[in-house]
Amino acid sequence: MKSPTALNPHLKNILAKKRKQQGDLSYYSKGIQQGDKVILSQAITILESTRLPDQQLAEQIIEKCLPFANQSIRLGITGTPGVGKSTFIEAFGSHLVGQGKKVAVLAVDPSSQISGGSILGDKTRMERLAHLANVFVRPSPAKSALGGVARKTRETMMLCEAAGFDTILVETVGVGQSETLVHSMVDFFLLLLLPGGGDELQGIKRGIVEMADLVLINKADGERIKLAKKTRIDYKNALHLFPPKASNWTAAALTCSAISNEGIEKVWEQIEKYIKLTKRNLYFESNRQQQAKYWLEASINQGLQTAFYQNETIRTALIKIEQAVLNNELSPFQGATQLLKLFKQRSKD
Amino acid sequence: MKSPTALNPHLKNILAKKRKQQGDLSYYSKGIQQGDKVILSQAITILESTRLPDQQLAEQIIEKCLPFANQSIRLGITGTPGVGKSTFIEAFGSHLVGQGKKVAVLAVDPSSQISGGSILGDKTRMERLAHLANVFVRPSPAKSALGGVARKTRETMMLCEAAGFDTILVETVGVGQSETLVHSMVDFFLLLLLPGGGDELQGIKRGIVEMADLVLINKADGERIKLAKKTRIDYKNALHLFPPKASNWTAAALTCSAISNEGIEKVWEQIEKYIKLTKRNLYFESNRQQQAKYWLEASINQGLQTAFYQNETIRTALIKIEQAVLNNELSPFQGATQLLKLFKQRSKD
Repeated sequence: MKSPTALNPHLKNILAKKRKQQGDLSYYSKGIQQGDKVILSQAITILESTRLPDQQLAEQIIEKCLPFANQSIRLGITGTPGVGKSTFIEAFGSHLVGQGKKVAVLAVDPSSQISGGSILGDKTRMERLAHLANVFVRPSPAKSALGGVARKTRETMMLCEAAGFDTILVETVGVGQSETLVHSMVDFFLLLLLPGGGDELQGIKRGIVEMADLVLINKADGERIKLAKKTRIDYKNALHLFPPKASNWTAAALTCSAISNEGIEKVWEQIEKYIKLTKRNLYFESNRQQQAKYWLEASINQGLQTAFYQNETIRTALIKIEQAVLNNELSPFQGATQLLKLFKQRSKD
Repeated sequence: MKSPTALNPHLKNILAKKRKQQGDLSYYSKGIQQGDKVILSQAITILESTRLPDQQLAEQIIEKCLPFANQSIRLGITGTPGVGKSTFIEAFGSHLVGQGKKVAVLAVDPSSQISGGSILGDKTRMERLAHLANVFVRPSPAKSALGGVARKTRETMMLCEAAGFDTILVETVGVGQSETLVHSMVDFFLLLLLPGGGDELQGIKRGIVEMADLVLINKADGERIKLAKKTRIDYKNALHLFPPKASNWTAAALTCSAISNEGIEKVWEQIEKYIKLTKRNLYFESNRQQQAKYWLEASINQGLQTAFYQNETIRTALIKIEQAVLNNELSPFQGATQLLKLFKQRSKD
């Protein structure tokens, strides 16, 4: 065996890099496990980076943090712009901190690609909350596909959990596909609505009310109190008509005012009731396992498609075959069979 | 070069088989193009077979028939059991034949796997219609996955078109996923409802009314006429509230009685209006092209997943990795990355 001094410069370089990276790794993993918010923030930036060395480092950080993750309550919060999501999260988050919780607020907002602004990017939002010692606020990852945002959010959640945050709030806008993604990574799903007007009139997509574990009529203050109460009753009745959930939980409807701090504590009481029920009937754990399986499968499918569509041979052939299909020279199924055969051969080269 | 007599017995055998197959091929392709219903029926049976030589022959038959396909109007017809779908199709099909049309009736019914009976399997159904010279009735393909049913139905449609059938009715039960599949292979989508009671009360899945180009209240006869008219008005008003369709068509609501043959001709008038509009605004063609692209992509994704999940190495590794993910030793994304790496290596062996 050669002595280390006999190593060539190239190999030395690699080893040095590796040592540096291992240094980095323990810097991040220890920092996170000690609950250092600055290091947590840096680690999330590495996670969001598209550079290959960053991605490799991120993988290692996650591996180190995983044993300390999963010990939290994950809450999804959705509602259209204008419903008062950030004011609610300020009030709710402060209440949780008062209860001794450590709160992380994440955002999933793929629409920021289009609107150009992240929903949490506005520095003035949640300022009071963000400055509390036991709170960590992280805006939506920058312009990226929905799948990418989902992965980054789910892994960010794990790092926050490893850093000791026991209550994770994932905020999303209830108008696109993002709430389905968020729903598949949280334990409890909260829908914020305005007093008056059905969910469809408020721009909430069909199916979202069915996903909710709690419908919360916000802005129940001043002249709107009466209307808010009526809206609550309407939803209370409507929610009973939905088929029973797998969790055995019946979604509730409540009112609150994030501005006057009215009804905020009731929200947490509902969540506690939900957790008690679902931990007892074992749904809590089985749901998390279902979610993990779902993300495993979704990532596999995504990966298979990426490998296929990024393959140069396929890209060239696809143009021709697609044209042949559109000209009715090939059926779509025959076109697919030809492309898949080509992909298989190509993989063997 | 060797003379043919120098061929070894094995090669001779292959050539003989090939000649036999080519004989078969021209038997089927010519028979279909001559509109022979018996040969069409035999070809569909080959299409539905899972035997490899049958599948290869089916591919060739489709290839021969494709240039003669696509010249038809494709109609999707959905509605829950009890709404009178088969009676309607009898009445409607007979009307179309009276108009000089050649009508093929296909069925997509994945639920027959569970109920054990194909919705068109009942021999007494549509007997009158099935015996008309210009009508071809084909029951749902036997027990098979939804994706398989979709492929077979779409290819059966092509064979029927090549056989000169210019109006294809695809029947499905409006309670599962099958109507979304059917919607993505037809030009016009018709929803049958009963007088009284909203679509949800009638067991119609959310979103199906939005897909409909025509809502048809059947059984508008006897004492039900008044209720049917009221239901029609309700839907007429509701349909106007949906966002405009890409086809620029506003879905209509009509009543009919399949038993007394009342209102049947109005249905065809609506469809003709729709075709005129969408051929003029070019939606008809662009929609078919979108559908072809959709089926190309869907078949590719299906094929990629089949190759992955049927791979022995992957099957073994998947069990371990899934367990590691459930034990929080691996994140779902890391698990997927490991499996995809393994699959790539494996493909290179």
